[in-house]
Amino acid sequence: MATLTQTTIRVNLPQEAYDVRIAPDGLDQLGAWLAGDGLTEKPLVKPGQKVLLVSNPVVFELYGLRVIASLKKAGYTVCHCILPAGEQYKTLASIERIHDAAYENRLERSSAMVALGGGVIGDMTGFAASTWLRGIALIQVPTSLLAMVDASMGGKTGVNHPKGKNLIGAFHQPKLVLIDPNVLKTLPVREFRAGVAEVIKYGVIWDKPLFEKLEAAERLDDYNHVSSDLLQTMLEHSCRAKADVVSQDVKEAGIRALLNYGHTIGHAIESLTGYSEINHGEAVAIGMVAAGQIAVDMKLWEASATERQDALIKKTELPTRLPNGINIDEILVSLKSDKKVKEGTVRFVLPKGIGEAFVSDMVTDKIAKAVLESLRSQSEVN
Amino acid sequence: MATLTQTTIRVNLPQEAYDVRIAPDGLDQLGAWLAGDGLTEKPLVKPGQKVLLVSNPVVFELYGLRVIASLKKAGYTVCHCILPAGEQYKTLASIERIHDAAYENRLERSSAMVALGGGVIGDMTGFAASTWLRGIALIQVPTSLLAMVDASMGGKTGVNHPKGKNLIGAFHQPKLVLIDPNVLKTLPVREFRAGVAEVIKYGVIWDKPLFEKLEAAERLDDYNHVSSDLLQTMLEHSCRAKADVVSQDVKEAGIRALLNYGHTIGHAIESLTGYSEINHGEAVAIGMVAAGQIAVDMKLWEASATERQDALIKKTELPTRLPNGINIDEILVSLKSDKKVKEGTVRFVLPKGIGEAFVSDMVTDKIAKAVLESLRSQSEVN
Repeated sequence: MATLTQTTIRVNLPQEAYDVRIAPDGLDQLGAWLAGDGLTEKPLVKPGQKVLLVSNPVVFELYGLRVIASLKKAGYTVCHCILPAGEQYKTLASIERIHDAAYENRLERSSAMVALGGGVIGDMTGFAASTWLRGIALIQVPTSLLAMVDASMGGKTGVNHPKGKNLIGAFHQPKLVLIDPNVLKTLPVREFRAGVAEVIKYGVIWDKPLFEKLEAAERLDDYNHVSSDLLQTMLEHSCRAKADVVSQDVKEAGIRALLNYGHTIGHAIESLTGYSEINHGEAVAIGMVAAGQIAVDMKLWEASATERQDALIKKTELPTRLPNGINIDEILVSLKSDKKVKEGTVRFVLPKGIGEAFVSDMVTDKIAKAVLESLRSQSEVN
Repeated sequence: MATLTQTTIRVNLPQEAYDVRIAPDGLDQLGAWLAGDGLTEKPLVKPGQKVLLVSNPVVFELYGLRVIASLKKAGYTVCHCILPAGEQYKTLASIERIHDAAYENRLERSSAMVALGGGVIGDMTGFAASTWLRGIALIQVPTSLLAMVDASMGGKTGVNHPKGKNLIGAFHQPKLVLIDPNVLKTLPVREFRAGVAEVIKYGVIWDKPLFEKLEAAERLDDYNHVSSDLLQTMLEHSCRAKADVVSQDVKEAGIRALLNYGHTIGHAIESLTGYSEINHGEAVAIGMVAAGQIAVDMKLWEASATERQDALIKKTELPTRLPNGINIDEILVSLKSDKKVKEGTVRFVLPKGIGEAFVSDMVTDKIAKAVLESLRSQSEVN
C-alpha cells in the first residue's frame, strides 16, 4: 500500500472553528499539536495543564501508552479513565465515572479531556467534558472508521436514555479531531464495514465523486483490501462532507438533517434489536436501502440509482434486508418516538439523485410499510 | 403597601436575548406571554406544544395549578414532574427523573420545560432542558427571592457532584424569566433574608444607588416590613445588574466573576457544613464580611465601607460570623477545590468602593486565615 498523506480539514462554525487532521501515526504527535507547535497560533490546551484521557480497555491496551507518552512529552499532566466497551455502557452512570475521575484529578476549567476510542467513547467523553464545570476542552481521537467519518465531528455528544438512544446530550465542539488511519489496522472487520456504511451515505446525499470512487473499487469489505488511495478519499471526502454540512447548520435546524439519511429506520432497527444483534452501520445500511426504495416508490428517485446504492452496500458485505423476526408494525411505532419527529410527523431523508437528498414529511405509513415488507429477511419470505 | 409595577429587563446576549419580566400576579399570564400575545414578535413556545412543568411539592401546592391553568388556556399541553425539595436532591438522579417524565410525555425538540421553584428547581430544570434532545426551550419562574435576583438569570444550570457543589452543568439560557413578586408572601422569612444577601452583593460590587437605598430602609429582614417601593428597587436593580454583567460575559471569562463576591468563602462554608445548617445566602453573607475585611486588611477598601456593608447584613438578620465548630484550616483547603481556581491560585473578588469590585489573586493564605480567625463565632471566642 502507498502511504497516506497528512491532510487538514477546517470546520468553520459561526462561534468556533477547529481542525480535523488526518495523519498517519498522528497519535505520536497529539501532544505537540495540542501545544500548538507550528500549526496553530496558540496552544489548543496550555502546556502544563491536566489532560484526562478516556478510553476503553481494548483501545487503551493498543494505543493508550503512545498517546500518554505523546501528551507527557509536550508537558501535560496526564490521567486516565477506562470505561467498559459497548453501547450498553453509554449511560449517565458512565458519565458519573468520568466526572469522578475529573474530581479525583482536580480538573480545572483550563484542563482538557481526550476521547480515544470509537463513537461510544467519543460521545460520552464529549458529554462529560461539556458538563464538567459547565464545559472544558475536548479532543477527539476516533479509532473506529465510523467515529472518524461521523461521530467525532460536529459536536454532538451524549448518552442513551434507558428507553431511547442519544436522548440525553449536548452540543460541544472539540478543539481538534485527530484521525490516525493506521489504527484501522486493528479494527475488527465488521466494524470497518459499519464505517463504510456512513461513507456510502455521504456519497448518496452529498458527494457524487465519492460515490463513483466507491463504485470503481474492487472491494469495500475489508481494510486489508482497500487501497491507501481509496482510504484517503473515503476519509477526506467524508470528513469534508460532514464539515460542510455542520458548518452550515450547527444545531440541526436545516440541512444537517440530511446526515440522518438511513438513520430513521436504522435507529428503529437498532432499538428493536436491543443495540446488540445489529450494529449502527448495519442498521444504517438497511435504512438506506429502505429510504432509497421509498424514494423510488414515490417516483422521486430512479430505480437504477437505488440499485447502484444497494450494490455498494452489498460490496461492503453489509445487510440489505431486515433482521429475522423483527416486527414491522413495531418499526412504524418506533419511528414516531425518534427525536427528529416534529409535531408528530416522521421526517424521512430521501435521495433525489446521486449526491443529492432532501427531507420529506410526505412518507405515509402505507408507503413505509410496503417497503419494509419487501425487505423482510429471505428466510422469512421463503 | 403600594402595588408593584410591571417592568421588563432585556438580557442581551451575543447569541440570544431574553426578557426578565417582573410582574405582580404574572403567574396567571405566563401562558399568554409564552404564546407571544402582543409582547413579542413570535411565540416563545408555539401554542399546541408540550410543556413540562417542574416544581417541588411545597411550591406546586401553592402555585402549580395557577400556572397549569394559565398554560392550558394558551393552548399548551401540560404535564408535570414534582421533585423533593432541598439541595440534597440536586443530583444527576433527579435529572434522570425529569428525563423520564420528558420521555413518558414524549417531549419533542419544540417542547419546553418550565421551572417553578427556587434555585434548586431552576438549576435542575435548566440542566434537564439543556440535555434533553441536546437542548429544548426553558422558562424560569423563580419563586424565591434568591432565585429571582440570581439563579434564574444568566443561564447557569447544573447539579452537585457528591464531592462538590455545581461541578456538573451547562450553560442554557431561558426564553423568559418571569418574576411574580407576590409569591414572596409565602416565602419563609429565613429564605427571604438569604435573597437579600445577594441583593446586598449587587449593591457592593455594582450598584451604589441600590446600596444607599438599602441603607435608607428601616428594615430588610422581613418581606412584610419591606415597602413595595423598596422591593421593586431590590428586584429591578438586582436583575439589571445581573443582566449587565452576564450580557458582557456569558461564559464567566471576565467580569462575570464579580458575581462571585462573597461566594468563595461562602461555598467553602456551605460545603463544610454539609449544605444544611447554613443556607446559601447566609454563607454568602459571611463570605462578604470576610472578603470585605480582607480588602481592608490589604488596604484596598476603607474600614468605614466594610462597616456599612456589615450593617446591611446585620439589618437583614444574616450571620456575620463563622458557624460554631467550623475548622478554619479546612476552609482554606476547601477554597483550593473551588471550580473558579485557576492553575491552583484561589481568586477572590474584593470590593474597592461602594459599587465597585475586582478580582484578585493576591490574597495569601495568611491574610485569609487571619480574617477567618477574627470571624470565629462569639461562643468560641469567649
